[in-house]
Amino acid sequence: MDTTVEQLYGSKVRKYFEVHNVVYKILTLETTEETKSMELVLHILEEVHKFGLDRRTEPIIAIGGGVCLDSVGLAAASLYRRRTPYIRVPTTLLSYVDASVGAKNGVNFCNCKNKLGTYTPPIATFLDRSFIQTIPRRHISNGLGEILKMAIMKHKGLFELLEKHGKYLLDTKFQSRNGLACHGDAALTTTRLAIQTMLEELAPNLWEDDLDRLVDYGHIISPELEMKVLPSLMHGEAVNIDMAFMTYVSHDIGLITSEEKNRMVQCMRNLELPVWHKGCSLQLIKKALAERFKHSGGKLRLPLPTGLGTAGMS
Amino acid sequence: MDTTVEQLYGSKVRKYFEVHNVVYKILTLETTEETKSMELVLHILEEVHKFGLDRRTEPIIAIGGGVCLDSVGLAAASLYRRRTPYIRVPTTLLSYVDASVGAKNGVNFCNCKNKLGTYTPPIATFLDRSFIQTIPRRHISNGLGEILKMAIMKHKGLFELLEKHGKYLLDTKFQSRNGLACHGDAALTTTRLAIQTMLEELAPNLWEDDLDRLVDYGHIISPELEMKVLPSLMHGEAVNIDMAFMTYVSHDIGLITSEEKNRMVQCMRNLELPVWHKGCSLQLIKKALAERFKHSGGKLRLPLPTGLGTAGMS
Repeated sequence: MDTTVEQLYGSKVRKYFEVHNVVYKILTLETTEETKSMELVLHILEEVHKFGLDRRTEPIIAIGGGVCLDSVGLAAASLYRRRTPYIRVPTTLLSYVDASVGAKNGVNFCNCKNKLGTYTPPIATFLDRSFIQTIPRRHISNGLGEILKMAIMKHKGLFELLEKHGKYLLDTKFQSRNGLACHGDAALTTTRLAIQTMLEELAPNLWEDDLDRLVDYGHIISPELEMKVLPSLMHGEAVNIDMAFMTYVSHDIGLITSEEKNRMVQCMRNLELPVWHKGCSLQLIKKALAERFKHSGGKLRLPLPTGLGTAGMS
Repeated sequence: MDTTVEQLYGSKVRKYFEVHNVVYKILTLETTEETKSMELVLHILEEVHKFGLDRRTEPIIAIGGGVCLDSVGLAAASLYRRRTPYIRVPTTLLSYVDASVGAKNGVNFCNCKNKLGTYTPPIATFLDRSFIQTIPRRHISNGLGEILKMAIMKHKGLFELLEKHGKYLLDTKFQSRNGLACHGDAALTTTRLAIQTMLEELAPNLWEDDLDRLVDYGHIISPELEMKVLPSLMHGEAVNIDMAFMTYVSHDIGLITSEEKNRMVQCMRNLELPVWHKGCSLQLIKKALAERFKHSGGKLRLPLPTGLGTAGMS
C-alpha cells in the first residue's frame, strides 16, 4: 500500500476491523520499484498464510499503485494455494489506466524489470478516480506518460485531448468536480479512452503469444533505463524518454513528418514528462535493442508511430 | 535431478554439451521433500536467468521425480518471464503416474505441503519406463500407493491387476523385458490404466473449481502427516496410511463389506506399503479434517470407497 492508503487508514501496522460482520484484515506494504521483488511476494505470502483465508471465497483486495497490484497479484492470485481470488483497486493514475487492465503481474529479478510473474487476471478491478487526488503532481505526469503512449499509437482524438487539456488535468489531478466548463469532462473522457484503447490492444493477445505489440512502444529501452537509474526515473518517465527517442527514429526513417514529431514532443513537455536522461547512453540503447532482438526470435521489430494516432511494426 | 539423472550424467555440476548443433545446459538439483521450497525455485530461476534462454523457443526440460518436476514447473513454466515452455520427464514411478499428468506444480511453504504453486501445464511430458529400473524398491512401493488410489476409487480391473501382479511389479521394477509369461505385460497395462484413470478425473477439473475430487482419496490426512514426520514417510506411503484409515471409516459406516476392506488392506501389504505410522495421532487427524472443513466452504465431504473400484463423496 502506498501513501494514499496510509492516509486513509492512518497506520503502518496490520489491523483488523469489522464492517457488517465481515472481518477485514489490513496489511500495509512498502511498495516501491526497489522493493518489487520475490522477497516482497514472500512477505505477502507469509502474512496471507497467517490470516488463514478461505481458499475460494475470501478475496484479497490490493489497494495501491502498480507495484502493490503486481506484487499482491503474483502472491495471491497466482501462488497462494495455486489461486486465491484477488481484486485490484488502483490508487495512482498510472495503475488506473495500466495495471488495472490485463492479466499480467510480476516483480523485478536480478535487476531486470518484471522478469518474474504470471498471467493471472483479477476477479475484478474497482476504479475510483478520487484516489488520484492524493498523489503528487509528478505521479500524475507519470500516468500521463502511459496515456500518451496509447494516444500516439492508436488514437488521434485522445492525443488531441492531451494536447488541449493536459495541463488542466495535471492541475486538477483528474478530479472533474474541480473543473472548468471549457474543459468539459476531460478527466473522465481521457481515462475512459485510455483504458478502452489499452483493452483493445490487450484483449486479443492476453498471453502475449503475438510479440508484435503496439503497447510495447516506450517499452523497448525504458526497462533497462528505469532499472539502471533507479530510483531517479519513474516508470512513465522512463517510458516517455523511450517514446521521445523512438519518435526521432520514426522521423529519421520518414514515418512521420517534422510537424507530427514536434507536436508529439511538445505534448510530452506540456505533460511535464522528461524527454531525456543522462543515463540513457548509446551503450544502453544498443544493449536494450540487442535484448529485444534476442527475445523476438532473432528479428528486430519495433512498434513505431506512423502519424498522430497511427502506428506499425518496423 | 535425482540419483537417476546423476547416474546418467555422472556429475553434480552444471555442464554444457552439444548434440546436433543444439547446446544443452545441465543444472543438477538436490530435490527432496525438505528442499521443495521457494528457495529451490529461486535457485532454479537464477540459474535459468544465467543461461539466457530465448523466451518462447528454448524449452526447459525437467528430468526427475515429482519434487523436481513440480519445482522446475513452478520456476520455469509459470514464473520465468511469465511463461517459458517446459517439458516433464518423470524418472520415478510416482511421478510417472501422477506429476506427469495434470497442470499443477507447487512447493511447500510454512511447513504446509504444496501451499504455493500455479496451474500451468507442460508443453509435453515424455514417458520412459526404463528410468524406473534405477530407483530403489521402496520408491516403487511409493508409486504403487498412488496407482492403488486410482484402482480403489475408480477401476476394479486395475485393482485386480495390483492384487495379482503387485509383487511381480515390485520385483521387476516395472521392466517388462525382465518379465515372465504368466504376468503378460502387467507393467505396461498397469501404468497405462493408472494414467488413463487419473486423466479421466483431472481433465474435466483441471483448475479444481470442483472441490469434490475422488483423487483426494488418501490426501485428506496425509499432507499433515507427511510434513509432520518428514522425512520418515514418502508421499505415497503417507497417502496409503490415509487410505487405510479411510477404508476403515468406509467400512465402519457401512459403505464397504468386511471382505472388500480386507482385500484392500491385504493389497496394500502386498505392495509393501505401510498402513499406519505412530505420527498419525487422533489430534493430527482432527486437525487435518478441520482444515479440510475450512477449505471446503464449511462442509466436510470426503471421497470414500463404496466398493472395489467405486467411490463417492460422503
